[in-house]
Amino acid sequence: MTGTVYLVGAGPGAPDLLTLRAARLLAEADVVLHDALVHPDVLALAQKARLFNVGKRANRPSVDQRFINKLLVRMGQRYAVVVRLKGGDPHLFGRAKEELDACRRAGIAVVTVPGVSAGFAAASALGASLTARGVSRSVTFVTPSVERGGAASPHWAKAAAAAETAVVYMGALRAAEVREALMALGVSSSRPVALIESASLGEERILRGELGALAELAAQVGQGPVVMVIGEAAASAEAALDAANAA
Amino acid sequence: MTGTVYLVGAGPGAPDLLTLRAARLLAEADVVLHDALVHPDVLALAQKARLFNVGKRANRPSVDQRFINKLLVRMGQRYAVVVRLKGGDPHLFGRAKEELDACRRAGIAVVTVPGVSAGFAAASALGASLTARGVSRSVTFVTPSVERGGAASPHWAKAAAAAETAVVYMGALRAAEVREALMALGVSSSRPVALIESASLGEERILRGELGALAELAAQVGQGPVVMVIGEAAASAEAALDAANAA
Repeated sequence: MTGTVYLVGAGPGAPDLLTLRAARLLAEADVVLHDALVHPDVLALAQKARLFNVGKRANRPSVDQRFINKLLVRMGQRYAVVVRLKGGDPHLFGRAKEELDACRRAGIAVVTVPGVSAGFAAASALGASLTARGVSRSVTFVTPSVERGGAASPHWAKAAAAAETAVVYMGALRAAEVREALMALGVSSSRPVALIESASLGEERILRGELGALAELAAQVGQGPVVMVIGEAAASAEAALDAANAA
Repeated sequence: MTGTVYLVGAGPGAPDLLTLRAARLLAEADVVLHDALVHPDVLALAQKARLFNVGKRANRPSVDQRFINKLLVRMGQRYAVVVRLKGGDPHLFGRAKEELDACRRAGIAVVTVPGVSAGFAAASALGASLTARGVSRSVTFVTPSVERGGAASPHWAKAAAAAETAVVYMGALRAAEVREALMALGVSSSRPVALIESASLGEERILRGELGALAELAAQVGQGPVVMVIGEAAASAEAALDAANAA
């Protein structure tokens, strides 16, 4: 007998931004493999499950991901309901493809359950829409990655520069590089930026400024996960309202 | 006394993809203004609320949006908890900016509650991640819009072409234009595409093919809302697994 592996989005952080489906699956789960940052109140929903914290340690991503893949398959071979609980939405920067592939290779049924990604919680913190009719009709979600050959204009930067709103995940430690790459592609140094730390949680914090000062802003954030929003959506609500009134 | 207006994401369609916070706010709501496509089981959670269906009629978007803005303000001036329930996530293609601005101009407190956007339910339907380490590090969400002057390469198309995965909302009726605009920007006619109709609902349906045949695929979809995914994420799970095995 083999079970089903569910790759489930835990949402951006606040326990009540979990979906009803995720809550139900956690209650039914025999085993839960979870990321390090999942809220304790969410894990508490998995009342009968054996819990594995498979949060990655720094600098050892590839070894750990192979371990997670193997553990998922082993659990899927032994238990009926296996939940792999991932921060945000599992389809975005969550390495879901590797876990899906591993389960499928082993003949384990695997499905994904969407969740609220951190970028949307960041927009909520800003009190701003990521799109606006006639102003912003495209939003790009990127993570800055090192590319082979060290291209001057990496692919992620081109995608971010081409969109009216860019949402950058896992970029705070590389803020200077994000600024340089975008400005090299012609993005104005005065473009509004906001860094949202721990979006949706009690310790949520917003830092606003301009692209030219992105590295200085990023130096002020703490230990929580950070999402950057670049574009008009990052301007303050008051500034946005002034602009709308003037138009 | 004025209340608070909550712009709340209802998720992609399936009632259990609602967040716990949205469910609680619906239960507390005095008034709910909802889109046409919100599931009846979700509306049933608003047990004590007066319901207004403010779903837009075709061809009259601007008049209706002004009416919605006015109604939101009037309700916010009279009731404690006003929920504006929007399909998907309110920060993405939901005209939230106009509603936020209207409330703020009138001095009504307004906050947003993120939800699961249709693009993530579409990825779940495909059983695919929108990003993949080393393959796809950027995802762009766009809606094809008519631009002033009728530029040959509209902004939304440039943003979609620059990303490794493009997720196109409200584009099925303009599929030929999407194909032409992307191919004019150098995107290959053989790039995988998938059209996901009614993602997350019982009548969910997937059509797969290549960018060159996008219009023909779009001609086969029914009356439900459609999300297009363009890029490797749109290939079948079997094709993705074959590619991963070969790498």
